[in-house]
Amino acid sequence: MSSKIRIGISGYGNLGRGVQAALAKNSDMELVGVYSRRDPKALQLVDPAPRFHVDQLASHTEKIDVLILCGGSRSDLPAQGPKYAALFNTVDSFDTHARIPEYFDSVDGPATKAGKTALISAGWDPGMFSINRAYGEALLPDGETYTFWGRGLSQGHSDAIRRIPGVAAGVQYTIPSAEAIEQVRAGLRPVLGTRDKHQRECFVVLERGADEAAVREAIVTMEHYFDEYDTTVNFIDAQTMAAEHANMPHGGFVFRAGNTSEEQKQVIEYSLTLGSNPEFTSSVLVAYARAVHRMNRAGIIGAQTVFDVAPGLLSQKSAAQLRAEML
Amino acid sequence: MSSKIRIGISGYGNLGRGVQAALAKNSDMELVGVYSRRDPKALQLVDPAPRFHVDQLASHTEKIDVLILCGGSRSDLPAQGPKYAALFNTVDSFDTHARIPEYFDSVDGPATKAGKTALISAGWDPGMFSINRAYGEALLPDGETYTFWGRGLSQGHSDAIRRIPGVAAGVQYTIPSAEAIEQVRAGLRPVLGTRDKHQRECFVVLERGADEAAVREAIVTMEHYFDEYDTTVNFIDAQTMAAEHANMPHGGFVFRAGNTSEEQKQVIEYSLTLGSNPEFTSSVLVAYARAVHRMNRAGIIGAQTVFDVAPGLLSQKSAAQLRAEML
Repeated sequence: MSSKIRIGISGYGNLGRGVQAALAKNSDMELVGVYSRRDPKALQLVDPAPRFHVDQLASHTEKIDVLILCGGSRSDLPAQGPKYAALFNTVDSFDTHARIPEYFDSVDGPATKAGKTALISAGWDPGMFSINRAYGEALLPDGETYTFWGRGLSQGHSDAIRRIPGVAAGVQYTIPSAEAIEQVRAGLRPVLGTRDKHQRECFVVLERGADEAAVREAIVTMEHYFDEYDTTVNFIDAQTMAAEHANMPHGGFVFRAGNTSEEQKQVIEYSLTLGSNPEFTSSVLVAYARAVHRMNRAGIIGAQTVFDVAPGLLSQKSAAQLRAEML
Repeated sequence: MSSKIRIGISGYGNLGRGVQAALAKNSDMELVGVYSRRDPKALQLVDPAPRFHVDQLASHTEKIDVLILCGGSRSDLPAQGPKYAALFNTVDSFDTHARIPEYFDSVDGPATKAGKTALISAGWDPGMFSINRAYGEALLPDGETYTFWGRGLSQGHSDAIRRIPGVAAGVQYTIPSAEAIEQVRAGLRPVLGTRDKHQRECFVVLERGADEAAVREAIVTMEHYFDEYDTTVNFIDAQTMAAEHANMPHGGFVFRAGNTSEEQKQVIEYSLTLGSNPEFTSSVLVAYARAVHRMNRAGIIGAQTVFDVAPGLLSQKSAAQLRAEML
């Protein structure tokens, strides 16, 4: 009998692949299987591993300590989160910020009833950025919190570009304003509007015969996505797109700038520079799977968020080791 | 009967003053009293508050929810930590890294026996930096952790300068190497020696007739403190010292640079730019006092460290509010 934490992966897109890669770097965990809605034999895995159809999950409840849900927030997790929280300890990256309370409740009921622990909305935002917003506000109650994203590829904005007629391929980078960041870093606590904080830069491959000016206009005027920002649109060919825009870098900054007295300014900065957004998110999910396993063993059940997880629970090290080596 | 968290301050130096200032910015807390070994009437408080002699603490156990220990790590806390953990929930900033395990044990026994919660070694290092070292290692197990301190005034090194014959006054600033930081930030995972990471800059006021060259030599060759560093010594007059070196700025950086796969580098950076080192440390102590109060009510007793405290416990906001507003 293995003493490793036994992990299942539900869904095998970018996130599922990232989780498999992350598990290889965590020696206290083992991958029980990858579960997909597709034909398991057709799955191209990063490394060899058992492959199953998701329908087999219900019969594998005794084999899996934590199931990592790697589906999307829009159509997968709202159904899968509550369903699997009734069968497994789970971790997911539900990231539709406005719907988190509702999603939390939908998962909390089944998890609690089944005595399972379900950690929702892990990743970097929501996730590590949320933690830093909470720490910042608690440590400097007289202060302002600022979140900047990028430079990074935004999946949602890239999808929005691709839906425009005449666009064959497109990616969008969110770029934080260097000037705004310098003001915040200097502790000036500036009031910043949407346009002051981020710019948007698009790279587009046109379909044959499409009108450049019309596509540009459709992008920069698109409500919610682009109209409130300064947006640059660059037209490139398909080869350049494949060569220069295949990675998914991202990152950003969380600042808390505050005063501990009238005279004294204090600035806390947390930043991420991510070569691969999905791989980092996956690494966060895996670390939280360890915490979820421990919390469930300690009798802490129901839905949880990163705010509920003590930092030490994420570490492979024991509490005594952490005190001796890392405090 | 008040529903605020009732705080006592034990010791009234820079840290005690900072705690009093921080309490004024946390509306869910109230200051019950400042306790000192000095004559309470002689204490000059930042703001008016009840003043007591420490001997009165033992009779105030019912008045205080959390006692914040503001003494020093060398001679105060080793005795006060265990003593007061038997009477109160406590928070302290014990910062002698090598002695933390021993100090933890000395506090854990009395606290557990008395059903009290004692949070040791809060602040920024140990404290927030420790948390970020632990998060970084857990999220990027294939990686390197780097801690840089400064630019900031080091109390220990300033004290060491002042002990040299001929020195009337002196301060020392620790300066992180900008070049080393750039290498780390770029994800290069450099191997850095002591001399590569920090420089030391000293400002010294000489006593009348003291020998500049001899004092400089005594500083730069001092074992452990300066001999392994590139050290600059500047001689200034007493007026300049008072005008330009009275504040206690500090800060630093914790980096974790790692790979989530062979191709993908990820860098996590946490940094503090502190106008006042003691005021920021005090703010951390106050936020952890809130957590300690909640943990004790939840039956979590004995010695604790920042690794054991879930981020949400530090916040004035409820768990539901945190999920809705900050996740």
